Amino acid sequence: MKLYEFAPAPNPRRVRIFAAEKGIDLETVQVDIRAGEQFGDAFRALNPYCTVPALVLDDGTCISESVAICRYFEALKPDPPLMGTDALEQGQIEMWHRWIEFHGLSAIADALRNTAERFKNHAVPSPKPYAQIPELAERGMSRIGDFFEMLDARLAESSHVAGEDFSVADILALVSVDFAAVVKKTPSDDLTALKAWHERVSARPSASA
Amino acid sequence: MKLYEFAPAPNPRRVRIFAAEKGIDLETVQVDIRAGEQFGDAFRALNPYCTVPALVLDDGTCISESVAICRYFEALKPDPPLMGTDALEQGQIEMWHRWIEFHGLSAIADALRNTAERFKNHAVPSPKPYAQIPELAERGMSRIGDFFEMLDARLAESSHVAGEDFSVADILALVSVDFAAVVKKTPSDDLTALKAWHERVSARPSASA
Repeated sequence: MKLYEFAPAPNPRRVRIFAAEKGIDLETVQVDIRAGEQFGDAFRALNPYCTVPALVLDDGTCISESVAICRYFEALKPDPPLMGTDALEQGQIEMWHRWIEFHGLSAIADALRNTAERFKNHAVPSPKPYAQIPELAERGMSRIGDFFEMLDARLAESSHVAGEDFSVADILALVSVDFAAVVKKTPSDDLTALKAWHERVSARPSASA
Repeated sequence: MKLYEFAPAPNPRRVRIFAAEKGIDLETVQVDIRAGEQFGDAFRALNPYCTVPALVLDDGTCISESVAICRYFEALKPDPPLMGTDALEQGQIEMWHRWIEFHGLSAIADALRNTAERFKNHAVPSPKPYAQIPELAERGMSRIGDFFEMLDARLAESSHVAGEDFSVADILALVSVDFAAVVKKTPSDDLTALKAWHERVSARPSASA
């Protein structure tokens, strides 16, 4: 199998970290989304929705969407578990994962995609063109600050995002916090629980995958 | 356990249909989000993120986020499977589920929440207030049309959204297509694969849960 990705983008990084935690070696192929390669015929034939990452299996089957690829890996190689084992853990990890995605990464994406020149007619990750909305970028910027505060509050009560164990929710939160730098947002020093957690998860070897 | 929900809203309907397919009886408690009950102290004590649905277990543990509740049910009662059994099925169902959510339900939510009077200072489902963005509602309306077309194309090649079996992706697609009526969008008659699928899934007893 091959992972089609673009190294600087946040969604591929989620998958690379997840695979590294699982000990899964990934052969990667770069798709330069800054140059619009995701809309070219070659990539479109693999993934008609024109998004990275996309995992292409040896028989040509394509799994797109970072979480879907992670779920495929989780079932393929259950240890170490990153999406929970019993029902409650699975539910709580999913809850926190979605919460981080909605309040964190989506807000950052709104801020970036609705201002950066390279997303001018592609403010929505889709094969269809959509114009940028500057007001949505502003809302995104404001939401990022709220996200940092809410994440700090959560990490003040729990060593990891979804509970006491490292999970896919920590991966997404790490990727989101780091990616916020693209719109010049970083957590302020008074968010001490967030800062301490960030230092811990960044020290894991997977963080540099 | 009790499901805190608001019957007319789409996300609680996802959970009700999922539970009905599993044969799980749900005790429900209505939280009138049109009256702002989700921001009241009583509900906030259960779910500080002020969203429905929220499943409250007998020990007081709260699982919010519709998909997280479905995942909890899937692990609790694996039959019939609605989120896939082997790795490939799980990955593909997750992929389509997210695809429907992003291009379907999120677009409808953008259209509704950025225009309806009742969401005036709550355009984002969050305890924090966010103003409406009329341009985002327009983008949402345009995306809904694209969503119907893309869903029709998918259903022209597959009997169900994620493959040959009914899954959580069909539940979300059904809820999304039906909920689009709230912003006066319905699939046109020439989308014959979508129409045929809609008739089939609407005929399942769970559709009226």
